Amino acid sequence: MFQSAELGHKLSKEEFAKQEPALREKLLDVQYELLEKAPFSVVIVIGGVEGGGKSETVNRLFEWLDPRHLQMHALHEPTSEEAEQPSMYRFWRRLPPRGKIGLFLGSWYSGPILDRAYGRTKDVDLDTAMNETMHFERMLTNERVLVIKFWFHLTKKAQKKRLEELEDDPRTKWRVTDLDWERFEMYSKFRKISERALRDTSTGFAPWYIVEASDPQYRYATVGNIIHDAIRKRLDAPAQNTADLTPPLVKPIDGKGILDALDLTPALPKEEYEDQLLKQQGALNFLFRKPALRKRSVIAVFEGVDAAGKGGAIRRVTGALDARSYDVIPIAAPTDEEKARPYLWRFWRHLPRRGKMAIFDRSWYGRVLVERVEKFCDEDDWMRAYGEINDFEESLAKSGAIIVKFWLQIGKDVQLQRFEERASTTFKRFKIGPEDWRNRDKWDAYQSAANEMIDRTSTEVAPWTLIEANDKYYARIKVLKTIVSTIEDSL
Amino acid sequence: MFQSAELGHKLSKEEFAKQEPALREKLLDVQYELLEKAPFSVVIVIGGVEGGGKSETVNRLFEWLDPRHLQMHALHEPTSEEAEQPSMYRFWRRLPPRGKIGLFLGSWYSGPILDRAYGRTKDVDLDTAMNETMHFERMLTNERVLVIKFWFHLTKKAQKKRLEELEDDPRTKWRVTDLDWERFEMYSKFRKISERALRDTSTGFAPWYIVEASDPQYRYATVGNIIHDAIRKRLDAPAQNTADLTPPLVKPIDGKGILDALDLTPALPKEEYEDQLLKQQGALNFLFRKPALRKRSVIAVFEGVDAAGKGGAIRRVTGALDARSYDVIPIAAPTDEEKARPYLWRFWRHLPRRGKMAIFDRSWYGRVLVERVEKFCDEDDWMRAYGEINDFEESLAKSGAIIVKFWLQIGKDVQLQRFEERASTTFKRFKIGPEDWRNRDKWDAYQSAANEMIDRTSTEVAPWTLIEANDKYYARIKVLKTIVSTIEDSL
Repeated sequence: MFQSAELGHKLSKEEFAKQEPALREKLLDVQYELLEKAPFSVVIVIGGVEGGGKSETVNRLFEWLDPRHLQMHALHEPTSEEAEQPSMYRFWRRLPPRGKIGLFLGSWYSGPILDRAYGRTKDVDLDTAMNETMHFERMLTNERVLVIKFWFHLTKKAQKKRLEELEDDPRTKWRVTDLDWERFEMYSKFRKISERALRDTSTGFAPWYIVEASDPQYRYATVGNIIHDAIRKRLDAPAQNTADLTPPLVKPIDGKGILDALDLTPALPKEEYEDQLLKQQGALNFLFRKPALRKRSVIAVFEGVDAAGKGGAIRRVTGALDARSYDVIPIAAPTDEEKARPYLWRFWRHLPRRGKMAIFDRSWYGRVLVERVEKFCDEDDWMRAYGEINDFEESLAKSGAIIVKFWLQIGKDVQLQRFEERASTTFKRFKIGPEDWRNRDKWDAYQSAANEMIDRTSTEVAPWTLIEANDKYYARIKVLKTIVSTIEDSL
Repeated sequence: MFQSAELGHKLSKEEFAKQEPALREKLLDVQYELLEKAPFSVVIVIGGVEGGGKSETVNRLFEWLDPRHLQMHALHEPTSEEAEQPSMYRFWRRLPPRGKIGLFLGSWYSGPILDRAYGRTKDVDLDTAMNETMHFERMLTNERVLVIKFWFHLTKKAQKKRLEELEDDPRTKWRVTDLDWERFEMYSKFRKISERALRDTSTGFAPWYIVEASDPQYRYATVGNIIHDAIRKRLDAPAQNTADLTPPLVKPIDGKGILDALDLTPALPKEEYEDQLLKQQGALNFLFRKPALRKRSVIAVFEGVDAAGKGGAIRRVTGALDARSYDVIPIAAPTDEEKARPYLWRFWRHLPRRGKMAIFDRSWYGRVLVERVEKFCDEDDWMRAYGEINDFEESLAKSGAIIVKFWLQIGKDVQLQRFEERASTTFKRFKIGPEDWRNRDKWDAYQSAANEMIDRTSTEVAPWTLIEANDKYYARIKVLKTIVSTIEDSL
């Protein structure tokens, strides 16, 4: 992959000086057009060998572009808050909104490549990490983020020369550290590993641009032009209709889904309920005081038919816990900051810290439920969401989160009865509105979306638990029992 | 202050059981009304002695209220990100949006009281801290946050009994630590210090409610009722017109302000400019590589007349720096998340970490400039903002931030000339719009607001530097020189 970046590419200072004003003007032009129209955001990744002039190039970009609408993220050690979350957390929280450009020096490639080079992982781990990365970048691309990736390359000889030059100049001497020389000694290893990583992740939607880095003028001009061309091309692209390419989802010929097969009759008498409630709440409380839980987090997702009793079930869970150990996150319409970013961004903001439980009252599954049924997003958006959500939950699980997901199901008749009851009880009057009645009219569409969701996102790390909720007592106990046993099995 | 909380207040279990359903219903009622109308947010502070049942009470509130619209913040050690910021940062970042309730267990009182009790500070430091706290709470109140503060009190005898009870019960034994007994030994000291702190901060807008904590039923019912009454009263309060109470601002009789007295003619020839530019940029770059700067941060504020050259000056500053060490934050209209919180919230989000510079292109001064002139806020809102901004900058300075503030001034004729030039240059066309022409019509109002702002917010820790900007070269060099000398003086 690196051969064509070892040809000794050069651009004379004179030639560069001649090209620079026009390059700058057209870069500003795309930057402002991007800002005004805000159809997408831009993420620029700059990786490559030490001494390859990465930060000089970034500085140059900041001179060319309007620095007010560029964000620079140089990532070193994670902060204590970041260290508790999945490795991608630090990138998610820094994603630029639409219209803006984010520059990442030190990216999601740095960790896996360094780990492999220092022998902390094996090839297969690198491949897995690169596979995740590819999923991540594909999701970004689909979510209207333009991903531009540069890899600055130097031959071993050129790297040595460059480090020596920096060391010889008293103004730049401080920049060369022992670590740089240590890494230089590992040149061939890094070259091999990087090549493997780059090959795996040079995709059609986010290809690598390998830049020969020894000549600064060549490097600046190449990077500047690629950034311009990539943004220009995307700005000028006609609106996509990728939905046409999406294969149709097929319903089972007999029309039967998982939810139809569910027997909603199980019930608990009040006395047994009260008995069980105390017992299960006690067990949950006990689990949260175990030292082992301080290193984990718990994520509970509640989805279900309107009036199925999500709120009541949630209150029976929180009732078992110290208020300091949980957060309930009700998911309503996204804010404008959330709308300007990939749809999963708003959930990354609410991940629990270690030792805590986050309870999502509705969740990222809105994408394949309400957004699908109400057509708030395109068909291909929710079609790809199944895979994106599975990836998301896998990365949560990997970082130590224990995940439980509930679908609360009631019969259509029971829903009607509860709606009417809510409308006539004072302190429940806030729980029912015209929207609930509208959703009820689309009962079948919602059920079929839910069937499909359960099918496609019940995974080993995060299976769905279906809750037969015609009887509230039965439902609440099943929720509690499931949480307790899932945590027990995970510790 | 504590006498009336040592009377042995009690509520029998039967009486409590009788009152609870009605209390719960009215609490839910105000919570939902708050949520629907969202006229303000609620911050509840719970402080007091160990063993006073603080967390049990919080748990009870979570049972009574809808936990989906309550946020609980139990604050212990600051995270590494928080430790780099002013002490109030951790509270700012957790402020609930309008319509929601935030519960703080461990608040802005905990640190100062503990510091004093352990002899790390003196009475005068406690008084200063309480004075700041009072400013903070007054600002919150004015910014439509209802602040409710509870202090749970126990006599020494009652505290001992309570700790012993907890220790004797195997289910709660784990909750009593050596630290609790250590603090118990310091009972009289804590009592004296808390009394001093509470007396200082029991204000009309945010009084303390001291609750005798030995009887749980009495405690729960008292807290529940106070919360209900406070929210109810504020919900029912007629719209305030405090602007009527604001004394008028008076212009100097001769109509002359600081800006009128400014001589805008200083200029630099191009050659000298280029020479000075290199020199000053070099000096700034050098300062950012000093180890002493790694423990400080730099905050630069750029305000000024439209087309005065803020962007150009900012680019000459950033041109001196490594892109990793600064962030430019352009301030435009607030997002909806920002609008739902006190106006300074959006700036707390962008404070620089240590070793970094944050450059604000327009800033919190918008409150007393555009918001004042365009009447986006009431007269009393911008009147009080001067003091709030001074408090804000003082707390930044205290935490180690170096602050420079620039007002760029040009003549009205020069502005016209630049507007016309911008309109006719391709890659500057984005820099001029109808709004700029509208603002120009209000030239005098903006100038008079700026005069007043400079007068009232030029403080010892954060003075304004006026930049004579008719000549761009002169202006840029003065900006750079000021930054360099301010940092030099501070290190």
